[in-house]
Amino acid sequence: MTGPFDVAVICGGVGAARFLRGLVRAVDPARVCAIVNTADDMRLHGLAISPDLDTCTYTLAEVINPETGWGLVGETWQAKETLDRYGGQTWFGLGDRDLGTHLYRTQRLAEGATLSEATREITAAWDLALSIVPMSDDPVRTRVTVASGETIDFQQYFVERQHADTVTSVEFDGAAVAAPAPGVIDAIATADRIVIAPSNPFVSIDPVLAVPGIREAIIARRASTVAISPIVGGTAIKGPAADLMRSFGHQESAAGVAGVYNEIAEHLVIDDIDAPLTDAVRSAGMTPHVTNTMMSSIDVARDLARFTLDRVVI
Amino acid sequence: MTGPFDVAVICGGVGAARFLRGLVRAVDPARVCAIVNTADDMRLHGLAISPDLDTCTYTLAEVINPETGWGLVGETWQAKETLDRYGGQTWFGLGDRDLGTHLYRTQRLAEGATLSEATREITAAWDLALSIVPMSDDPVRTRVTVASGETIDFQQYFVERQHADTVTSVEFDGAAVAAPAPGVIDAIATADRIVIAPSNPFVSIDPVLAVPGIREAIIARRASTVAISPIVGGTAIKGPAADLMRSFGHQESAAGVAGVYNEIAEHLVIDDIDAPLTDAVRSAGMTPHVTNTMMSSIDVARDLARFTLDRVVI
Repeated sequence: MTGPFDVAVICGGVGAARFLRGLVRAVDPARVCAIVNTADDMRLHGLAISPDLDTCTYTLAEVINPETGWGLVGETWQAKETLDRYGGQTWFGLGDRDLGTHLYRTQRLAEGATLSEATREITAAWDLALSIVPMSDDPVRTRVTVASGETIDFQQYFVERQHADTVTSVEFDGAAVAAPAPGVIDAIATADRIVIAPSNPFVSIDPVLAVPGIREAIIARRASTVAISPIVGGTAIKGPAADLMRSFGHQESAAGVAGVYNEIAEHLVIDDIDAPLTDAVRSAGMTPHVTNTMMSSIDVARDLARFTLDRVVI
Repeated sequence: MTGPFDVAVICGGVGAARFLRGLVRAVDPARVCAIVNTADDMRLHGLAISPDLDTCTYTLAEVINPETGWGLVGETWQAKETLDRYGGQTWFGLGDRDLGTHLYRTQRLAEGATLSEATREITAAWDLALSIVPMSDDPVRTRVTVASGETIDFQQYFVERQHADTVTSVEFDGAAVAAPAPGVIDAIATADRIVIAPSNPFVSIDPVLAVPGIREAIIARRASTVAISPIVGGTAIKGPAADLMRSFGHQESAAGVAGVYNEIAEHLVIDDIDAPLTDAVRSAGMTPHVTNTMMSSIDVARDLARFTLDRVVI
């Protein structure tokens, strides 16, 4: 392949961001294209908010807020305090510094820029060498139906209710008529390797795959595609991935993940602790590779990135 | 009259806010209705911004930023710093604390609340006893044509270009189809007295009068209406009022103001320094009243308010 990128990574939020942080230390960042879920995006207080794009951008720029895991370091909460006075919605944390990003993106979209363009401008301002690209410039919104029968927006499920509800189904509103953002299909088609980041399969990776053309493009590259299991020792590192595995009839294990990804990826990287599951992964249709996937430091993340890339021989 | 208000005040921004601050010390604040210009409102970064409403609210709540004359005291500029990084629009100052107000208003409007309702909620949160009411719940936008032939938004003229351009004409887009906000006509029709605050006649008071029904309602109460001249000693206390007087063919003086307001108000309060102009004011069709109008302290503002109200005998 001779495309512009060596690696295309399908990304959600925190787990993907941590992986990318290692990846840009393992390969030339300019040769990395991160294709990021935007189905968690929302409008709040009139602002265009893209949580996964910002988490990836801030993490790669080394300005993510270490206390919260989202938003910017050195954050203050003055706008929130005023909102509190009015009894406004404050369940979604909007720090003062972070607000500047939402203000900029909202203004650029109002001026007719695409989300890709606004994202490119934002990442350039943080001096990022890798490409961070939204899965689509069209609006796609994850809607979650919970056990009570209610259907709610993803952030309401995830943040406001702290993913305490049992999910019965997930839909990606708008996905059917969305187009992949410019460069997405090309990156997948021409990168040496495609990585499915250790993100939630159902609410972070699935929305990307739901954009017409993306799943098919990855399937065409199945032999060069390697996923990293977000389930370690039967639980998720973070968030509701394990709960969703169960809800959707999969085993809460690395083998269950293999059952979810076997159509799109040949390889599955699983954690040392899950070494006993290699046969089960193979039975589920993927080639297992065992290493330390717990990204407790940048070095571990870099080693995980190297290991992951090396699974695909080119 | 037996309406809910003793005084209805037609208001712009800073000058009006200072007068109101004195007025609520001269009479029962609960009997004061401030009808505020909203033609300076704008959308910026997707947010609904109402500068004159906020200046009145913050000033009356004693939380106006004394350094800037707008926004909130104790302000920080973290969002602006992030915006600066992106090269975003920062000519309109959005402090972090102030942003909370815009976020709240934007969210409420998106939820279907009217601007009146959002304003009532905001002023209630600041424990204001007076009523602060937008002139209209419908969008009206001041558009300024400058000497170069360009037509620009008011805030662009006023803030971005610091009112350096010569104005050739002013229009109030949307005014013809706007309706007065609920309670506005009633307040004018039933208040004991109507005050035209010392605001810019052309870009603060005129837009209010341009909302169909408001000018007529004030004319019907002409004998009970008293204006305070924003021109003192031939110049404006603040802003481009004197320049605009000249551009629109009026003398830059309290007598010129009388020529502008004689149709709607019987009385004109002018500053001590303009005492020699009483005859000219009378010739221009208004009854002059001379006192100190320079609101250098709350006490002066309170005394000015008392003096102003006493001009109308009921």
